[in-house]
Amino acid sequence: MPGLASETIGIWVAAGSRDESAETAGSTHFLEHMLFKGTGSRDAKTIAAAFDRTGGDSNAITAKELTCYYSRCLVTDLPNITGLLVDMVSNSQLDVEEFERERGVIIEELAMSADDPGDVLFDDFDSLVFGSHSLARPVGATKDQIRVLGHHTVIDHYQSTYIPPRLVIAAAGGATHEEVLAMVDDALAEAGLGSRADVWSGAGSGSESAIAGTDSVAKGSHLGGAARVRPEFQSGKSHTVKDIEQLGILLGCEGLEEGHDDRFIYSVMLTMLGGGMSSRLFQSVREERGLAYAVNCVASQFTDTGTFGIYAGCTAENAQAVVDLAMSEWDRLAQEAPSQFELDEIVSQLSGSMVLGLESSAARMNRLARSEIFGLPLESPMDLIERVRSVTAEDVSEMAGRLLSRPKALALVGPAAEIVLP
Amino acid sequence: MPGLASETIGIWVAAGSRDESAETAGSTHFLEHMLFKGTGSRDAKTIAAAFDRTGGDSNAITAKELTCYYSRCLVTDLPNITGLLVDMVSNSQLDVEEFERERGVIIEELAMSADDPGDVLFDDFDSLVFGSHSLARPVGATKDQIRVLGHHTVIDHYQSTYIPPRLVIAAAGGATHEEVLAMVDDALAEAGLGSRADVWSGAGSGSESAIAGTDSVAKGSHLGGAARVRPEFQSGKSHTVKDIEQLGILLGCEGLEEGHDDRFIYSVMLTMLGGGMSSRLFQSVREERGLAYAVNCVASQFTDTGTFGIYAGCTAENAQAVVDLAMSEWDRLAQEAPSQFELDEIVSQLSGSMVLGLESSAARMNRLARSEIFGLPLESPMDLIERVRSVTAEDVSEMAGRLLSRPKALALVGPAAEIVLP
Repeated sequence: MPGLASETIGIWVAAGSRDESAETAGSTHFLEHMLFKGTGSRDAKTIAAAFDRTGGDSNAITAKELTCYYSRCLVTDLPNITGLLVDMVSNSQLDVEEFERERGVIIEELAMSADDPGDVLFDDFDSLVFGSHSLARPVGATKDQIRVLGHHTVIDHYQSTYIPPRLVIAAAGGATHEEVLAMVDDALAEAGLGSRADVWSGAGSGSESAIAGTDSVAKGSHLGGAARVRPEFQSGKSHTVKDIEQLGILLGCEGLEEGHDDRFIYSVMLTMLGGGMSSRLFQSVREERGLAYAVNCVASQFTDTGTFGIYAGCTAENAQAVVDLAMSEWDRLAQEAPSQFELDEIVSQLSGSMVLGLESSAARMNRLARSEIFGLPLESPMDLIERVRSVTAEDVSEMAGRLLSRPKALALVGPAAEIVLP
Repeated sequence: MPGLASETIGIWVAAGSRDESAETAGSTHFLEHMLFKGTGSRDAKTIAAAFDRTGGDSNAITAKELTCYYSRCLVTDLPNITGLLVDMVSNSQLDVEEFERERGVIIEELAMSADDPGDVLFDDFDSLVFGSHSLARPVGATKDQIRVLGHHTVIDHYQSTYIPPRLVIAAAGGATHEEVLAMVDDALAEAGLGSRADVWSGAGSGSESAIAGTDSVAKGSHLGGAARVRPEFQSGKSHTVKDIEQLGILLGCEGLEEGHDDRFIYSVMLTMLGGGMSSRLFQSVREERGLAYAVNCVASQFTDTGTFGIYAGCTAENAQAVVDLAMSEWDRLAQEAPSQFELDEIVSQLSGSMVLGLESSAARMNRLARSEIFGLPLESPMDLIERVRSVTAEDVSEMAGRLLSRPKALALVGPAAEIVLP
C-alpha cells in the first residue's frame, strides 16, 4: 500500500479451540494471554510498553480455528514490533506464577462475556448445533474448566502447536514486501531461530501482487497433518432464560464452509436477506412493522462446515412475529428469484465494500492470512468483483432454498417465551 | 487526503439531548431516526438503498450535545450521498404513520441498551453526577417518555433546530475541498435552498490546511444564542442491582470541559493512569494482581463541563480491592511526579496515535467538525504533538491531584455489594 505511513502485521497460528480435547479445553485462549506475560528477554511490562509506545492498535484474538497476534503501527516502528511478536511466539516463558495470576483474569473475562446476552446467544447456538463436537465449546471454555486447567497443558500446547507449518506471518501497509521479509529475517535471527529458510517450509512468501489469482497452498496444509473431524449439524432448540428485557433470537441451519465454490452466491444471498438497512429482513421487520431494532443475517465459516443464521433482538411480545417474518422472508427468497434491479443493488454494495476495504491495512492483512491458512486463491479485488457480478438471480434463490431445506436450530436468550418455528 | 478513493462526509447539528426539556426528552434521538423515514422526494426504502448501494458505512449518532449524519463512501458516490444527506436534513417529511411505527423501534433500542450492563453503568453515572440537569438524562430518554412523546414535539424540534447556524458540514478524504463545496452547492440547489451563501453564514468554509493553526469560530456560536446552563456536579453513590456475574464500577469526579487550556495535560494523565496495557491501572489491577479483565480511564467532554472516571468490571469479591487499588494509583500519581522515562513513553504513544489517526477519513472528518462546533483552533498534527511534548511530569501530577481533590461519585451495576471509597 505505497504511501501509507502504517503497517498491520499479524502472526497467525493455525490452531483454535476446536483443536482442543475436553481435557485441554481453554488452553488455546489461555496460551494467547500467556504470550503477553514474558519471554526470555522481555518481561510482561516491557511487552506491554513496547506495544503501547507505538500508539497503535495491538492485540491478539483466539477463535475456533485460528489464533492471531497483531499490531497496526507506523512503518518506522515495524522492525521493533516484528521482533517483539516473533519473540512472543517463539520464546515465551509461560511462568507458573504469571499463569496462576492470569487464571483470575481469564475467569473475569468469561464472567464479562456471560453478562453479554449477545455473547451467550452465539455460544448457545454453537453449543446446540455442534453437539458433542469440539466446535460446540465456547472459545475460552468455561470458568470451571479454567479453574482446573493445568500449567503443563498450556506448555504442551505451546510446544506442540507454535511451530511450522502452523505459523503464518502476514502484513499489509506502507512497507514493501522485501522490507517486511528483511524485518522477519532479523527477528528470527534475534530470536535465535536461524534464517527464514530454516524455519519456514517454502510456501507463503509471495507478496499480494505476486500470488494474486494463483492457487495458494493446499487446504489444511498449515495443520501439518493434524486431522479435523467434521461435525454433524444438530437441529433443535435451546433457551437460556435470563431476566432481561429483550429476547435474543438466533435461528439458522448449517451454512457453507470456508472456501466453498458457491461462496459468492452465499455472500450475495446473505446481503440481500439481511446485510444492511435496505435488506429484506430489515425492511420487513423494522421498517415496515417496527418490531425490532436489530435484525440481520450472520454466518461463520470453518474448514469443513459453517453456520448460517438470522439474528434478531426484541421484546418477548414481538418475538413470535419476528420469527414468523424472518422465516417468511427466507422462504420468499427461496420461492422466487429476485429482480435484476435488486441483484444489481447488492452487487454494487458488495463491490463498493471491497474497494473501500482496500484502504484498511488490517483488513488486507486478514485477507492475506486467511487465504494462506485456508488454502484459498488470493484473488484481486477486480476478480472478486467479477465473481460477485457473475451471480445470477436464480443462483441466489437456489441458495436460499438449499439452506431452507436443511434442519433448523433456534437459540433463545432472555425472558421465558413460547416460540415456534412456522 | 490525496490519493484516497474514499471520503467521509458528515452533516452535524449542534444540538443534543441536553438541549431538551423534561417535556421534549428523547425528541433529538427520535428525530435522528425519522430523518431516515422519507423526504419530499425519497421514501424510506429509497434512502436505505442509496446508502447501502455505496457499500460504505453510513449511519447517524445522537449525543448529549451533537447529532451527526455521516457516510464513508467512494468519492465517486459522494455527489449522490451529499445530495441525500442535505435532503434528509432539510426536507424530511416526519410522516405520522412512520413516526408511530418508529416509536416501537426506539423502544426496542432502549430495551437493548437496558440489557447492556456497560450502557446502564455509564447512564447511571451521568444520572448521579448531573442531578436534575438535562445532561443527567440518557440520550434516548426512557421508554415511558418515548411512549408519550408527541409527533408535534419532534416536528417542532426539526423546524427550530435543523437550521443555520446549528448546521455544520465536514468532510475528509480523496475529494478536494473545491469538489466538496461544489457538491454541497449542487445539493443545496437540488433541495431548493438556494446557494451556500444564502444558507450558511460565512464561517467554516476553510479547508483543513487553510484553517489549521488559526482560531475557528467563537465557542458556542453554532448554538445561535441558545443558552446552555452549566450543571453543578453532584457527588454520591448509586447501585443498580442486577443479577449478573460482574459488578461494573465507574468511579470519578468532574473532569475538564471541551477545549480546556489544560487538555493536553489531561490527555497525558488519562493515558498514563489508564490508557493502555502498560498504564498504571492495567499493570496494578490486572497484570500484578489478576483482579479484573477490563480497567481503564474514561472521560467525556461537554461545552461547559466534563466527567473523569475509572472504569472496571470484576466479580463482586474483587470489587473492593479493585476500587482500593484504583484510588491508590490515582493518589500515587497525584503525590509524585512520574519519571521522565514514563512521560516520554506516553508522549510517544499519543504522538503515534495521532499520526496513525491521520489515515482515517472518519477520524479527520470528526476532528474538523468538533473543532468548528466547539470553536477550537484546528491545529496541525505536528502542532498537536508539540503541545503534548510540552507537558511536564509536574503538570501530570498536578492534574491528578486537582481531580483527586474534587468530590467523587461512584456508580455500580451488578450484584449487591458493599463498596466504600477509601
